[in-house]
Amino acid sequence: MGKNIAEKIFASHRVDNPFGDIHVIRLDAVFCHEITTPVAINDLVERGLDRVFDPAKIKAVIDHVTPAKDSKTATQGKILRDWANRHGIKDFFDIGRNGVCHAIFPEKGFVRPGYTVIMGDSHTCTHGAFGAFAAGVGTTDLEVGILKGVCAFHYPESIKIEIRGSLPEGVFAKDTILTIIGKLGVNGATNKVIEFCGEVVDNMSMEERMTLCNMAIEAGGTCGICAPDMTTVEYLWPFISDEFSSREDALKAYQQYCADPDATYAETITINGDELVPVATFGFKPDQIKPVSEMSDTRVDQVYIGSCTNGRIEDLRVAASVLKGKKIKDWVRGIVSPASPAIYNNALDEGIIKIFMDAGFCVTNPTCGACLGMSNGVLAEGEVCASTTNRNFNGRMGKGGTVHLMSPASAAATAITGYITNSDIYQQGGNS
Amino acid sequence: MGKNIAEKIFASHRVDNPFGDIHVIRLDAVFCHEITTPVAINDLVERGLDRVFDPAKIKAVIDHVTPAKDSKTATQGKILRDWANRHGIKDFFDIGRNGVCHAIFPEKGFVRPGYTVIMGDSHTCTHGAFGAFAAGVGTTDLEVGILKGVCAFHYPESIKIEIRGSLPEGVFAKDTILTIIGKLGVNGATNKVIEFCGEVVDNMSMEERMTLCNMAIEAGGTCGICAPDMTTVEYLWPFISDEFSSREDALKAYQQYCADPDATYAETITINGDELVPVATFGFKPDQIKPVSEMSDTRVDQVYIGSCTNGRIEDLRVAASVLKGKKIKDWVRGIVSPASPAIYNNALDEGIIKIFMDAGFCVTNPTCGACLGMSNGVLAEGEVCASTTNRNFNGRMGKGGTVHLMSPASAAATAITGYITNSDIYQQGGNS
Repeated sequence: MGKNIAEKIFASHRVDNPFGDIHVIRLDAVFCHEITTPVAINDLVERGLDRVFDPAKIKAVIDHVTPAKDSKTATQGKILRDWANRHGIKDFFDIGRNGVCHAIFPEKGFVRPGYTVIMGDSHTCTHGAFGAFAAGVGTTDLEVGILKGVCAFHYPESIKIEIRGSLPEGVFAKDTILTIIGKLGVNGATNKVIEFCGEVVDNMSMEERMTLCNMAIEAGGTCGICAPDMTTVEYLWPFISDEFSSREDALKAYQQYCADPDATYAETITINGDELVPVATFGFKPDQIKPVSEMSDTRVDQVYIGSCTNGRIEDLRVAASVLKGKKIKDWVRGIVSPASPAIYNNALDEGIIKIFMDAGFCVTNPTCGACLGMSNGVLAEGEVCASTTNRNFNGRMGKGGTVHLMSPASAAATAITGYITNSDIYQQGGNS
Repeated sequence: MGKNIAEKIFASHRVDNPFGDIHVIRLDAVFCHEITTPVAINDLVERGLDRVFDPAKIKAVIDHVTPAKDSKTATQGKILRDWANRHGIKDFFDIGRNGVCHAIFPEKGFVRPGYTVIMGDSHTCTHGAFGAFAAGVGTTDLEVGILKGVCAFHYPESIKIEIRGSLPEGVFAKDTILTIIGKLGVNGATNKVIEFCGEVVDNMSMEERMTLCNMAIEAGGTCGICAPDMTTVEYLWPFISDEFSSREDALKAYQQYCADPDATYAETITINGDELVPVATFGFKPDQIKPVSEMSDTRVDQVYIGSCTNGRIEDLRVAASVLKGKKIKDWVRGIVSPASPAIYNNALDEGIIKIFMDAGFCVTNPTCGACLGMSNGVLAEGEVCASTTNRNFNGRMGKGGTVHLMSPASAAATAITGYITNSDIYQQGGNS
């Protein structure tokens, strides 16, 4: 019987199947940030288990509150830093070299097709864009991963989502995934992998696929996955050119992780990309979506462009194409956080930082802070934010605040008018 | 009998002398930020006194924690924002348009020679660089200022500090003021105005004079003051060209606030500028200074370039001239905060942001946060920071952390080596 992508990865990484549907798999990478990993580190130290399975397979970054906002977060950073130094973890990205984990780790070539990755972070599913199985885990799993390089999972079923046709101009990966979450519901993919395929996905850049996979968890999915193809190989080529004699050879090797034609799925959903429109969330669940065009009476206090969902260079480009030569509304606080130093540098070189500054945006250093109300853009009671992030839970960006999730294009247009606005009233850029 | 600058300003602004040496003066401006003003606003509202004496004379900014780091700071910003809107305070600088108060208010032309200014902030003395009397005050004085446009002071005596000669290459305004504080001691100017004069001051830019006056409070001084001259007029010209037919006319008008030749002072100190060397603080008081060259065994974890003391374009230029083409030490977290959007934009246009990024610095949005351990660069227990800020009090940048105050040039050189370092081992830029 044919296998889907997750089944192939599990088959190649399984080290044990102790009982029932519990499968223990070997890990290719364990990712760490300063909020969840110090909890694991402290516990391991207390238990006399201050070891790591392989320092080269552990990657760590300070990204949630950076630079530190108080003694607590300074200490969290110090625990991670000292641990990385103590164990010779060379891929540790400290303040100044740091960015949002799910942006900087792919950029550095740390994810490959067929990889298994865990991290103490919900949006670890982002890395599935590379044809990897990447899942957010709790402290205990993280500790086992750090110590032993393995993790136990319920054997995941997959949902296949085929997106046919092509996206209309002004409709982006973010609109696509929000629409999918709207269809699945916030529990629609619980404990399942979402395998994205179809012409729309085939034509997406790696950045767009990351946006897609990033929000799999918002439908309950353990991971989002896209099949590796030549787009994947091109993105990775700077990191793999020593391993393969040609891009074609790399593609051939990676294609072992593509789904078989006769693979089976728990469910298959087909979406017509041509019918999609720009959408945004209302309410406090990411499956509560409406066309942006129906929300023009929603006034916003803040617009946030950034995060592991939409803080990459393509996102900043499309937002800048909407903002260029314009000023944001006087009552709007615009905040943009390029998701990594490389993205910031690209934006600097392309004049995008300047466009944001001229429009009246606050340009922060790379950080996740605002998305989860931890720093750099927390809302006050009663305030409303149009945001390119991934969660609109009640109080997510600050107690009593409301978040409307949308694409960078819609967020930029919203910043200009001060009300939720479709970017089609302004100039259009690329897809994101 | 001749008068010094402070005496002239008091004479022209006195509205009452109710008893003893208490003088009530009329205020030309009340400056506000989101940490201390909301306390005053809430109290005024509770007392049924929610009024302002003149919305055009009140200037407000969110600068200490920006963007908000938590619900508390988001609420502080909201209180200030709502108050500004409610009372028609047009000069309110919200997130995206905001910068460090003592950088952005002078930039906007809000301070003139002879002005009287209060603010609920210790470093309000910075504005004395324009020949103004500017003093940090507590909540009660701030409330009276907001309501009535007056403030009561003990009639201040002045200390005259004459800095003769010229500063050697590699010695900056920051080294000068630290040396002066070292001589005066942290209580040496308590309740007094420090009037800076002499050839060195005459040759300083407004930015350098602001650095000088900024730290008057660190010797206990109520205000630092420099006499208005053509440098002052040139800086202000974009804002005053409608008021005066020529720069010479403006100078003539402003010179009424220069000290009379026979003015008297509580104390006169003469310093030979040619003998000054780059200095840094040790210990936890700003009068504990040593030559930078004697501190080369002090290893640092963080280098911070920014603040109301040294976050202006001249400061960034000199730091960039040291950093250009170099990388900071791998164990050092470099953080730079341009002090206002205009400074950030200039640094962007001049390639300075790029130099900082290439060197490995984290470039934050304009904010005061790190200086007083409130956000964007708080130290953990046991950590050491070389900083261009103004206070090295125990725990100032984070509990258990140590701060060494120094010039931007020394801070940049320190970032490269990881130990406190004199910038003369690298290329030299201008004076700052």
